[in-house]
Amino acid sequence: MTVKFGLLGAGRIGKVHAKAITGDAQAQLVAVADAFPAAAQAIAAQYGCDIRSIEAIETATDIDAVVICTPTDTHADLIERFVKAGKAVFCEKPIDLSLARVKSCLDVVRAHKGTLMVGFNRRFDPHFKAVRAEIDKGTIGDVEMVVIVSRDPGAPPIDYIGRSGGIFRDMTIHDFDMARFLLGEEVTEVAATAAVLVDPAIGAAGDFDSVQVMLKTASGKQAMISNSRRATYGYDQRIEIHGSLGAVSAENQRPVSIEVASAAGYTRPPLHDFFMTRYTEAYAAEIASFIAALSGKGTASPSGEDGLIALALADAAVKSVAEKRTVLLSEIL
Amino acid sequence: MTVKFGLLGAGRIGKVHAKAITGDAQAQLVAVADAFPAAAQAIAAQYGCDIRSIEAIETATDIDAVVICTPTDTHADLIERFVKAGKAVFCEKPIDLSLARVKSCLDVVRAHKGTLMVGFNRRFDPHFKAVRAEIDKGTIGDVEMVVIVSRDPGAPPIDYIGRSGGIFRDMTIHDFDMARFLLGEEVTEVAATAAVLVDPAIGAAGDFDSVQVMLKTASGKQAMISNSRRATYGYDQRIEIHGSLGAVSAENQRPVSIEVASAAGYTRPPLHDFFMTRYTEAYAAEIASFIAALSGKGTASPSGEDGLIALALADAAVKSVAEKRTVLLSEIL
Amino acid sequence: MTVKFGLLGAGRIGKVHAKAITGDAQAQLVAVADAFPAAAQAIAAQYGCDIRSIEAIETATDIDAVVICTPTDTHADLIERFVKAGKAVFCEKPIDLSLARVKSCLDVVRAHKGTLMVGFNRRFDPHFKAVRAEIDKGTIGDVEMVVIVSRDPGAPPIDYIGRSGGIFRDMTIHDFDMARFLLGEEVTEVAATAAVLVDPAIGAAGDFDSVQVMLKTASGKQAMISNSRRATYGYDQRIEIHGSLGAVSAENQRPVSIEVASAAGYTRPPLHDFFMTRYTEAYAAEIASFIAALSGKGTASPSGEDGLIALALADAAVKSVAEKRTVLLSEIL
Amino acid sequence: MTVKFGLLGAGRIGKVHAKAITGDAQAQLVAVADAFPAAAQAIAAQYGCDIRSIEAIETATDIDAVVICTPTDTHADLIERFVKAGKAVFCEKPIDLSLARVKSCLDVVRAHKGTLMVGFNRRFDPHFKAVRAEIDKGTIGDVEMVVIVSRDPGAPPIDYIGRSGGIFRDMTIHDFDMARFLLGEEVTEVAATAAVLVDPAIGAAGDFDSVQVMLKTASGKQAMISNSRRATYGYDQRIEIHGSLGAVSAENQRPVSIEVASAAGYTRPPLHDFFMTRYTEAYAAEIASFIAALSGKGTASPSGEDGLIALALADAAVKSVAEKRTVLLSEIL
Repeated sequence: MTVKFGLLGAGRIGKVHAKAITGDAQAQLVAVADAFPAAAQAIAAQYGCDIRSIEAIETATDIDAVVICTPTDTHADLIERFVKAGKAVFCEKPIDLSLARVKSCLDVVRAHKGTLMVGFNRRFDPHFKAVRAEIDKGTIGDVEMVVIVSRDPGAPPIDYIGRSGGIFRDMTIHDFDMARFLLGEEVTEVAATAAVLVDPAIGAAGDFDSVQVMLKTASGKQAMISNSRRATYGYDQRIEIHGSLGAVSAENQRPVSIEVASAAGYTRPPLHDFFMTRYTEAYAAEIASFIAALSGKGTASPSGEDGLIALALADAAVKSVAEKRTVLLSEIL
Repeated sequence: MTVKFGLLGAGRIGKVHAKAITGDAQAQLVAVADAFPAAAQAIAAQYGCDIRSIEAIETATDIDAVVICTPTDTHADLIERFVKAGKAVFCEKPIDLSLARVKSCLDVVRAHKGTLMVGFNRRFDPHFKAVRAEIDKGTIGDVEMVVIVSRDPGAPPIDYIGRSGGIFRDMTIHDFDMARFLLGEEVTEVAATAAVLVDPAIGAAGDFDSVQVMLKTASGKQAMISNSRRATYGYDQRIEIHGSLGAVSAENQRPVSIEVASAAGYTRPPLHDFFMTRYTEAYAAEIASFIAALSGKGTASPSGEDGLIALALADAAVKSVAEKRTVLLSEIL
Repeated sequence: MTVKFGLLGAGRIGKVHAKAITGDAQAQLVAVADAFPAAAQAIAAQYGCDIRSIEAIETATDIDAVVICTPTDTHADLIERFVKAGKAVFCEKPIDLSLARVKSCLDVVRAHKGTLMVGFNRRFDPHFKAVRAEIDKGTIGDVEMVVIVSRDPGAPPIDYIGRSGGIFRDMTIHDFDMARFLLGEEVTEVAATAAVLVDPAIGAAGDFDSVQVMLKTASGKQAMISNSRRATYGYDQRIEIHGSLGAVSAENQRPVSIEVASAAGYTRPPLHDFFMTRYTEAYAAEIASFIAALSGKGTASPSGEDGLIALALADAAVKSVAEKRTVLLSEIL
Repeated sequence: MTVKFGLLGAGRIGKVHAKAITGDAQAQLVAVADAFPAAAQAIAAQYGCDIRSIEAIETATDIDAVVICTPTDTHADLIERFVKAGKAVFCEKPIDLSLARVKSCLDVVRAHKGTLMVGFNRRFDPHFKAVRAEIDKGTIGDVEMVVIVSRDPGAPPIDYIGRSGGIFRDMTIHDFDMARFLLGEEVTEVAATAAVLVDPAIGAAGDFDSVQVMLKTASGKQAMISNSRRATYGYDQRIEIHGSLGAVSAENQRPVSIEVASAAGYTRPPLHDFFMTRYTEAYAAEIASFIAALSGKGTASPSGEDGLIALALADAAVKSVAEKRTVLLSEIL
């Protein structure tokens, strides 16, 4: 069986998904839609697919599934429209920046027994997957404590900051999802610290650029997250998980692994400096997993519910910073 | 000038300090005192020093300084007695488990213009010192965020747990001091999470074995600490400091640095499994620093005040766990 | 300009090159030829190209270049035929196992002013390329000594051993080329040691499985190579270059970079266990470089001459083992 | 039992051994002798031992053993004198630069059933010892191939070069001993390459500064050595041993193990830059092993025979370079 795709949004991430779809023997890219004709044309020309309107894709009988990479504020509406149209939906995170809107959207998905997968791509990184596989094999025993250090090479443009929902919903949300993926038990408590250390303009936009979060589950499992919008040495993405029998960690990735020795010491090159090169394999594996699920192998995961909980953890962190106290997830969800 | 020492306490840590004193060309070990004659005799025999009572050392005219390694509940009293007797004092941490008692002790030290150095040995570890030196050189710019992972190979005996003051005052206190040493600005806010994951008997004794702490300074600098009483792979002691221009970190230490490659992968041996082998160099450098200060080179540091603040941070963490909220240091001190 | 390709040989390595050609926007795969129809059909089906005979490709007007991945004993003949037919030729190494045959083939290439590139893929590995780039930048000053450790996960089938030309011509030849690539000066002297330690059947087939080589240039630059047909931990491929100002090295590559810590120590997974996964990027970059050269960007390199010299070094090593002496390259070439 | 020592030679290495002897509870430093009174006085003052003449130590009844750290050209004579005097002898390497002289000296030792240990300190380095322990445990199966990279931070003074016996007898000799220690089978063949790349003055003094050696045993086990008198990044001393089941390696040692990350990449400090700090633990363990042997625990090893064979391998390397051929050890010994 071949899954026939419509691609909604032909921007940077749309191109990544177009490549993943066309490179998968089980899938076919039938059509692309974008408000900017040039963007859609570039993909259509490279991969030989149609350019259609969103409406045309919605009603198309030759399309089984859509990948939504349009702006965030259109996600929930598009999910609802395409689920109602009987298409399987892969949507870039987040579903929406409002928890209430995410909930109502998921209600629609459930009512229509729709298939919805959310783009937490890091779960598909081969190194993080291998970490999870070790946990599943029991190598480290019962998971007890997680440490996540996640630092971006640089801050996004200030105008993006303004509509991003803030660092917890925009950046930490990946780490919230990763913590859940690794802890294996739902988080019940959130405490967070936040400051503006990188760029005062970020503070002026109402956001933070340097944050810390502590998470705790009902049985006492714990996770720590350290986030910054600045890392001069590249895209710093490390996780370590400690269990009753040992620990497992994933190191940073760099484009070349050479080392220069001189009187100044031993120097290795910086890390990847861009999420798209850092997570190249993850993006391809994510779409392959969606295609596999639609072909009956496994379920589409992470789900809309995973998107909801990660956003709720972000909301809890925002509240924790504002009220200087530990926030229970039950206060939010 | 040679500094003449009396050693109070001839136990495990007393032996370490005896070796450091006798190995230092600027110092002489004159006498040792211990409630257990056999312990004192062992040191006297090995290094050719006197065995004397604490009272005799207190009044001795041939002794300039004392090193206090007696049980914790005697520290504050002994500091006061020896400061009054005009001796310079090096005291193992903590000064006392009660913040009020530490304050009154430091009042006495100040009133007598006494010299008091507190045994936060990790500041003298060559690797952590090198980290601090990079910060001082400006290599990483302004310090922004600190991440400390500190895990013991195993929990101490339950009867020790009961009189330890709890994990924050017994174990995390080293990390509180290290965070202050590295942040370069006083901590103003503390939030902590705690659980019993390693051994229910620790919980039954009223303590935790797995904790996390977030610290924040007035200007927004932040530190995270992850502590556990369990690490099957040895004594896990890592720090990383992120600044405006880069980061500097100190890796774990292991007794041998070989690697075995086989079909099972690449394996390096476990870490040091005991704090005394892990911190051998730090213990010697700490006493050397005290001797140097008494010889007029530098000041005796870390000070009693450093001991006080680290304990106050521990008290704040205890309160944060109990009240599920961020605690201001100003509530404690 | 688009370079139009014919692919000769649709086996394992042919598939790798087919993928590289079709993934390159500057190239088009027009036709494939293989003695086994099924192999050719698989590639034709996947990439939508023709199946043609070698003769038809030779005379085709819609084909600019060929990639030769047929059995070794056909290489020299095919190079001559396609150069005469005016096609640019990329040929898998080796051109031939006989130095005389390689020379006569290169005479034909020269006579027809043909373009010939030889598949020493390792020059295109991003890590080895980065090593070379550091040398070119002058980071390590004048190159003085090279150390190459190159060990295969396992020996090839015995029947392959028999027609491989022996380990120096089959396996070490890659390291000879790498040594030349890094030394930046022609090798003039070769000394080698050889033994059968892995499998007596290899000895029975007249070959060795464990060899060492020392190379020297006229000015005294030196290189060492250590080769084995056995490496339980994966595909071991390391190089280090020492110069007057420092050194640069390339480490091994592994599919996942996680680490498990337990009472047994710290373990990372084995290396890649197959040259095709180890050198995935190198194979793609090699063809891209050939395409670029045909499009006027740079020259096709490594050249036939590079293939000739690497083979001569292998012949010298064989002679050195037989005669237990240093062999001058001038005795061979 | 306490072993009573005389120390012959109070120079740099004499001081290292004096510290090791006085720090060992099973040993006592009774007397020191040196042609320079000031040198002997420094040791006598620090450790409270006598200053005596070599003759007085020779005839002393309160001395069991001597440590010889006088200039190389006195070693063989002193060994003979003290063995005849019934003292156990530890002698710094080499016994002599002349193979004939070493042989006649060992004849005297044998004739008097003397105890002679030679100072190949690297066998006692904890990391190299751990490598050997893995081999002995069978972790890597049968040893097949050894790779040793050994580079000095800088060349010794030219006047030392002149009397050193040349790089093979002065520097590579350590690696010859290490290769024998690790191969577990006697070397039968030696091939070497040599050049002057670091300093023409070394060539003018009749020596080389950059050399390579290949060794082979009767059963085909092999070792490679790469040596240089230059390493800008510190004292480069690495070994790796490959066996039928896997490999084991020892990494370089550095004084501090921190890492700085910045836009320029990840930098660790240089290695130790001096053999005495690099091999601090090895020097102490070496003397402890000698003391233990004299106390009936184990035998004094490495022996005079080990010194002889290492020198013979150096002579073979010299001959190999001169004659451009593989030299059999049986031609030398």
